Amino acid sequence: MFTLFYTPGACSRASHIALREAGADFRLRLVDFAVAEQRSEAYLGLNPKGRVPALQTDRGVLTENPAILAYVAQAHPQAQLAPLDDPFEFARMQAFNSYLCATVHVAHAHSRRPERWADDPAARVELQRKAPEVMAGCFQLIEDEYLEGPWVLGDRYSVADAYLFTIAQWLAAHRIDSARYPKVHGHLNRMLERPAVRAALEAEAASVSG
Amino acid sequence: MFTLFYTPGACSRASHIALREAGADFRLRLVDFAVAEQRSEAYLGLNPKGRVPALQTDRGVLTENPAILAYVAQAHPQAQLAPLDDPFEFARMQAFNSYLCATVHVAHAHSRRPERWADDPAARVELQRKAPEVMAGCFQLIEDEYLEGPWVLGDRYSVADAYLFTIAQWLAAHRIDSARYPKVHGHLNRMLERPAVRAALEAEAASVSG
Repeated sequence: MFTLFYTPGACSRASHIALREAGADFRLRLVDFAVAEQRSEAYLGLNPKGRVPALQTDRGVLTENPAILAYVAQAHPQAQLAPLDDPFEFARMQAFNSYLCATVHVAHAHSRRPERWADDPAARVELQRKAPEVMAGCFQLIEDEYLEGPWVLGDRYSVADAYLFTIAQWLAAHRIDSARYPKVHGHLNRMLERPAVRAALEAEAASVSG
Repeated sequence: MFTLFYTPGACSRASHIALREAGADFRLRLVDFAVAEQRSEAYLGLNPKGRVPALQTDRGVLTENPAILAYVAQAHPQAQLAPLDDPFEFARMQAFNSYLCATVHVAHAHSRRPERWADDPAARVELQRKAPEVMAGCFQLIEDEYLEGPWVLGDRYSVADAYLFTIAQWLAAHRIDSARYPKVHGHLNRMLERPAVRAALEAEAASVSG
């Protein structure tokens, strides 16, 4: 039994979707950012980074989406959520997930968490001002080069799709219409048809209103 | 035969060391940042991200250190550069590499490449001013929580060690003495004793002076 520590709408959604796609035995545990629970002593004892996602397993806690996503795929091989039999294709998937975590999520974070990199209020405003432009550049690159279609790796669905979907949903917060990127836009809509994605969105919405 | 596109001292050093540790059949190809070769049409055709590392293989080009490092380990299982037989340990390694690429390298980049996230000159100066503090926080977390010793994963050397070494070498650029972090410092020195690391450093130094 896994426990996923998550926050509704955060990047933990990617791991959440992957767990549902895998048919994993897991439960959700909300980390309430509204009361800064991610920096509580209890949570930092579990995940010293003070972030989500964190996946508690019977061997210890895993953090970082690219690691959790590959682990969920490897722990549930029957679900075929990663090209486990082909190291080159697996590396292509890992490269995509690394780009999302190290470049695209970081671009987004400059809008939401500028205090990570600047103390000066004017500098924070500048980071927030430029963030949509940086996000747009990232998604143009994904559109032009890295989203084969219908799925990230081509015909084969993988955990990279859950991650792309999660971050593409953030475009609206930057007032960027996903329709600017036809392949990304089509991917978003294709993801919304998957039962595991619908179930994850419903569970996260219920946790917010409940 | 692989070709590694690299720049001396850049994060491509991690992939470079891993290739040597693996005994891989590879050649080095310098990407000359001094003349912005990473943004040349020829290089962008190979790697549209305009960054290093890029690993050319007979099946295509791979980017992003965490992906290349795991691939090098998987392609040379006899070198035992990753816990390939244990998905949880593999995920721990991937989590460490994700943290380096998405948080620590990003902290460093705010000093070297502030233009990625800010146009305003004053904001860029503020990002550069704060970068050493952010780097120090990252290395304190690694010291306290994530470097088991003697290697990142404990007794087992892995490609994560090549990556940590590469980024720990950047501390000096922030005027941070690695001795502030005894485990990181010991790791740096331990790495410098490895023949593959020495060979990589020598090859990169030769390419600079040559």
